Amino acid sequence: MSVKPSGKNDNPSVILQRVGEITIEDRPVPKLVDPHYVKIEIKYTGICGSDAHYYETGCCGSFEVTSPMVLGHESSGVIVEVGSKVKTLKVGDQVACEPGIPSRYSYEYKSGDYNLCPEMAFAATPPYDGTLCRYYLLPEDFCVKLPSNVSLEEGALVEPLSVGVHAGRLANIVFGDTLVVFGAGPVGLLTAGAGYAFGATKVIIIDIVQEKLDFAVKNKLATHSYNSKGKSFDEIKAFVVETLGGKLPTVGIDCTGNKFCIANTIKLLAKKGRYVQVGMGAATLDGFPIAYVAENEILVTGGFRYSVDNYKTSVELIASGKINVKPLITDRFTFEESIKAYQYFKEGKSIKIMISGPE
Amino acid sequence: MSVKPSGKNDNPSVILQRVGEITIEDRPVPKLVDPHYVKIEIKYTGICGSDAHYYETGCCGSFEVTSPMVLGHESSGVIVEVGSKVKTLKVGDQVACEPGIPSRYSYEYKSGDYNLCPEMAFAATPPYDGTLCRYYLLPEDFCVKLPSNVSLEEGALVEPLSVGVHAGRLANIVFGDTLVVFGAGPVGLLTAGAGYAFGATKVIIIDIVQEKLDFAVKNKLATHSYNSKGKSFDEIKAFVVETLGGKLPTVGIDCTGNKFCIANTIKLLAKKGRYVQVGMGAATLDGFPIAYVAENEILVTGGFRYSVDNYKTSVELIASGKINVKPLITDRFTFEESIKAYQYFKEGKSIKIMISGPE
Amino acid sequence: MSVKPSGKNDNPSVILQRVGEITIEDRPVPKLVDPHYVKIEIKYTGICGSDAHYYETGCCGSFEVTSPMVLGHESSGVIVEVGSKVKTLKVGDQVACEPGIPSRYSYEYKSGDYNLCPEMAFAATPPYDGTLCRYYLLPEDFCVKLPSNVSLEEGALVEPLSVGVHAGRLANIVFGDTLVVFGAGPVGLLTAGAGYAFGATKVIIIDIVQEKLDFAVKNKLATHSYNSKGKSFDEIKAFVVETLGGKLPTVGIDCTGNKFCIANTIKLLAKKGRYVQVGMGAATLDGFPIAYVAENEILVTGGFRYSVDNYKTSVELIASGKINVKPLITDRFTFEESIKAYQYFKEGKSIKIMISGPE
Amino acid sequence: MSVKPSGKNDNPSVILQRVGEITIEDRPVPKLVDPHYVKIEIKYTGICGSDAHYYETGCCGSFEVTSPMVLGHESSGVIVEVGSKVKTLKVGDQVACEPGIPSRYSYEYKSGDYNLCPEMAFAATPPYDGTLCRYYLLPEDFCVKLPSNVSLEEGALVEPLSVGVHAGRLANIVFGDTLVVFGAGPVGLLTAGAGYAFGATKVIIIDIVQEKLDFAVKNKLATHSYNSKGKSFDEIKAFVVETLGGKLPTVGIDCTGNKFCIANTIKLLAKKGRYVQVGMGAATLDGFPIAYVAENEILVTGGFRYSVDNYKTSVELIASGKINVKPLITDRFTFEESIKAYQYFKEGKSIKIMISGPE
Repeated sequence: MSVKPSGKNDNPSVILQRVGEITIEDRPVPKLVDPHYVKIEIKYTGICGSDAHYYETGCCGSFEVTSPMVLGHESSGVIVEVGSKVKTLKVGDQVACEPGIPSRYSYEYKSGDYNLCPEMAFAATPPYDGTLCRYYLLPEDFCVKLPSNVSLEEGALVEPLSVGVHAGRLANIVFGDTLVVFGAGPVGLLTAGAGYAFGATKVIIIDIVQEKLDFAVKNKLATHSYNSKGKSFDEIKAFVVETLGGKLPTVGIDCTGNKFCIANTIKLLAKKGRYVQVGMGAATLDGFPIAYVAENEILVTGGFRYSVDNYKTSVELIASGKINVKPLITDRFTFEESIKAYQYFKEGKSIKIMISGPE
Repeated sequence: MSVKPSGKNDNPSVILQRVGEITIEDRPVPKLVDPHYVKIEIKYTGICGSDAHYYETGCCGSFEVTSPMVLGHESSGVIVEVGSKVKTLKVGDQVACEPGIPSRYSYEYKSGDYNLCPEMAFAATPPYDGTLCRYYLLPEDFCVKLPSNVSLEEGALVEPLSVGVHAGRLANIVFGDTLVVFGAGPVGLLTAGAGYAFGATKVIIIDIVQEKLDFAVKNKLATHSYNSKGKSFDEIKAFVVETLGGKLPTVGIDCTGNKFCIANTIKLLAKKGRYVQVGMGAATLDGFPIAYVAENEILVTGGFRYSVDNYKTSVELIASGKINVKPLITDRFTFEESIKAYQYFKEGKSIKIMISGPE
Repeated sequence: MSVKPSGKNDNPSVILQRVGEITIEDRPVPKLVDPHYVKIEIKYTGICGSDAHYYETGCCGSFEVTSPMVLGHESSGVIVEVGSKVKTLKVGDQVACEPGIPSRYSYEYKSGDYNLCPEMAFAATPPYDGTLCRYYLLPEDFCVKLPSNVSLEEGALVEPLSVGVHAGRLANIVFGDTLVVFGAGPVGLLTAGAGYAFGATKVIIIDIVQEKLDFAVKNKLATHSYNSKGKSFDEIKAFVVETLGGKLPTVGIDCTGNKFCIANTIKLLAKKGRYVQVGMGAATLDGFPIAYVAENEILVTGGFRYSVDNYKTSVELIASGKINVKPLITDRFTFEESIKAYQYFKEGKSIKIMISGPE
Repeated sequence: MSVKPSGKNDNPSVILQRVGEITIEDRPVPKLVDPHYVKIEIKYTGICGSDAHYYETGCCGSFEVTSPMVLGHESSGVIVEVGSKVKTLKVGDQVACEPGIPSRYSYEYKSGDYNLCPEMAFAATPPYDGTLCRYYLLPEDFCVKLPSNVSLEEGALVEPLSVGVHAGRLANIVFGDTLVVFGAGPVGLLTAGAGYAFGATKVIIIDIVQEKLDFAVKNKLATHSYNSKGKSFDEIKAFVVETLGGKLPTVGIDCTGNKFCIANTIKLLAKKGRYVQVGMGAATLDGFPIAYVAENEILVTGGFRYSVDNYKTSVELIASGKINVKPLITDRFTFEESIKAYQYFKEGKSIKIMISGPE
């Protein structure tokens, strides 16, 4: 299904003016100067919790919005112009847009960990404008071309899926692993689904909202689910052990940031188990099970966004049918309805809200 | 320097009868039945904090002494008898004694992680008797022969050194790494020294007792030291960054178990830094810097005792002169003075107390 | 589908007397002495090329048959007796039988590489008798219980599948890799299938027999095939590059042992590509592309049989439906027809011949 | 020892005009345009075999000189100008010059393997000019600042040392490994020395020229040497096994490119041994011991030049005193004597010839 460029010369943009105030303005169309870059007409953008955080509080983690900023960073679009050194993309190609551009000179980039680059320019993270506009510039190698069987809507879900893919890679999930994921929000669902696609034979997702758990299993993002509302660690563990035929999971990923979930996930793991922190909560954590980590030589790390190949892997996962991301889109808004979309997000009724590009 | 077997037929043993009561008794000489085993006449045994813990409280971690138990697990000795299938050791060989025997059938043993074997029989960990006696049995492959330039006293220090070697291996320390070690007790000193021997170009040891810090640097177990008494994290960090020429350390190891030390060590690390927990304190930890771990993709794990090759590596480190362990022995007692030795340990004036074998 | 023990007290065995002479004899029923062992009534045994090699030449690699030896090592069966220390198996359990028992004391076993143990006792490898008999003894942990949805016939295919699983593990195949396998014999087919199940997005199998290639693709053991009969390297490469959308494969595995196939597989690989030698041919190889290996930093290794967890993983692959091994069984013989079965093997018309247990 | 810039405005350069003809010409002084670059006044350049190859044959591997080209790529110098974005270097800094600049946009660079970048611009590899001139431009991050205890002459040896460092990293040499290196030319010597500095407890260097072997041991680049002239593999192996106390080496590196040396090195290795090809000879190799590789699961790879951190590690190795490179410089020529230097190289009497910068 080919989507054509609009040919329009304006650049309507969704701007967070200050806490609680979003407007839509026409901004200058960016000019393609760098020969390694392409110009993209944005077609879909998903709303992420961080956008909403800026909207409600002006902050997210250690970042603070101090001047108007275009929102959005989960986008897909169509190439409308290519720089002179671009080799692998052409006008009309549909692409998933990777929203964080590291310095090509940083040690982290050179070492294969560009997500950790201290000079990262990340869309909709102050002071960098986001993707919720008509035209956006990206380097060729931060666009992944969507094959014909991956839609632009699915392309906009590559961003959150890549978070799960990166976590799964850090945990080195292979066939035969067993996985527990705490948290069934969009990232938790996609992390579970990525782990399942990577070969985890059993994937147990845990949350306190039954609808999300049912959604996960129904859409084959997890093989089992557990509603931990009011449950003790021992009850959770009993379920997990029974589900895994008497064994403990080899991999655990927390997508909540909650201290109880983190401690429980770690304490569920088998010896030499691998744990990845994905959910962000408080900077420090009480009740961390350090003795369990030491006595069982658990490997604990965190996944920060996504890095080399993760976007490409996400597109391949969708294209191969190993994961079906479409059902996550529960609500759709037009670009012109963007403000309404952010307000709806706050109600917490959606899994993923998708905003289409400007008319 | 060859040490000869005594030829005696008794088996005097230092026994923890109950909390606070140690006696010396003659126990039956163990018989060599398993053809893969050797009989060792123990020549030196170092006192470890865990021994003292049992002595004072009857407990250590989750273990509790409920019946009389021979103390000691840091030992060296002379082979006095070998089983029929023993190929690499002979009577008269001097060996370092690895005190924990896993099940040969456990999954952990088969997978290369025998230290995590759930059926481990570990000397002086209830209900298993320790090595502070005349005769002790071990499988051939849990004895490491000491070359002629490694003394039996040094051989008794292979046990704590192996804890540091294992931690260094888990952290994958290679030439060019920079290392921070919190804690300058015997294990901290040997962990720092092992890291230095593995190629860390700078090793910063941190503690609040100046004598221990001076000891570490004087004996080339660390290149730099810092007295953190009354210092803030920012002050510690400033010293570390200056010492490393503007960089953060790539590896951190905590040998204290203290929550402030753990959090500080982790927060000092470079992106993708590697952290190993060695010191054991409370089961859970408050103030764990989870956001720092996630945003910098720090690898956190714990080292539990020692595993494949660690003993052999420790002996090679000593034999090659890469680490000088002798100065750690600050106090010596005869076997007959063992009770006095344990009492002296409580005073905290020693680094390592060495008890020689029975006369 | 439960299969019951026969309750019989004889032990008919298929014995290679000397080159070209196989007989069936009643041998003494082995007695269960070691408490870690179980006694199995063998139900199915596949014929492997090595059996046939011994039959025809008396040799296989460096091994030579010098006295009568029971053939067979690809077997499944039913537990009929368990030793006193056996915990996870009981009489009546159906199991896949791992045919090589290493020394529990070897360095290789302890290090997690028991397949390399120099004291390995491997079924039907001189001087050790094989599994083509009624009763066979194995340690508990070298039997993998078959779940209810895996048949005993499939269980006998776990052995050759495990060769492919081990190779795939050595090559660290994960989702997103692309794989070329040379050779479409039973091991090549199962290696391709294992690689596909481990997540290789495209698996190209190459051989000169069109029927085998068609079989591979039809049964989803590979996504693409290429008949290399009379083709140059450039022609093969052109097909591979086109199939992979302009890229080179990340993983190559040769299951032929042929020098041209080996060189071609290696030279097809992407930079940092991973190569595993599975097929065994001559001891040394002419035309090895050493400059290509060096300039592209290709990782070359070989997979020897199978090791920790491979059998378990194979059973899980079959149970999960990720690989369908049944179609490989093209011919079936009764135990009493064993001699006929070996003669039929020589005709080369079969993929895998399965011999059922004695009546 | 501070070396001052000359302040001169010419750019004398040593140019290979065609096979067998070298001239010295004044070329235009390069202008510093890219803000990430620095301008260096070259102070020392070592002669490498590849330079000599171009001189004698016009070719090296698949590269061919088709137009005049400045020679040299093993250089050090003094910074004389810095671009506006340069942060870590300043005028007057003494640096080792990394001579190959990859594309910042290539997949290999982004993945941490920039040495494999297909768009690499490498000094004195056609069509790129080399460093044997007065002024040379490099990106900031391809210069490594020399600390005060590393001389500029030593800095020019960082290039060949980095080849050995890269090989040692690929082989993951750590304390306790044992290493065999075939070939005692400059790269072989430095590879052995790097392996020793990385912790190999015993390093055996093998060659057929006794002087080189003696040089290696005398200068502590190896612990043992063996003259393999006229020796069989069994004789070599007997020496190695005896030297290693009955064991086989864990790591082997060939620095000759000779087929017999390669096969012998591999067949000497312990199970799971690691082999790195460094020496370049014929494109393909006869007699490759594929069965030994497969049965012992030897890991074979090749090291191509050097990559992330290798230059920095080399400088640290020299600065720390872990390796003494100075003795390798056996002959010195002035820039004006460059032609004579290349002729002297052909005589094969030197280990490393050093050419100082233009007056």
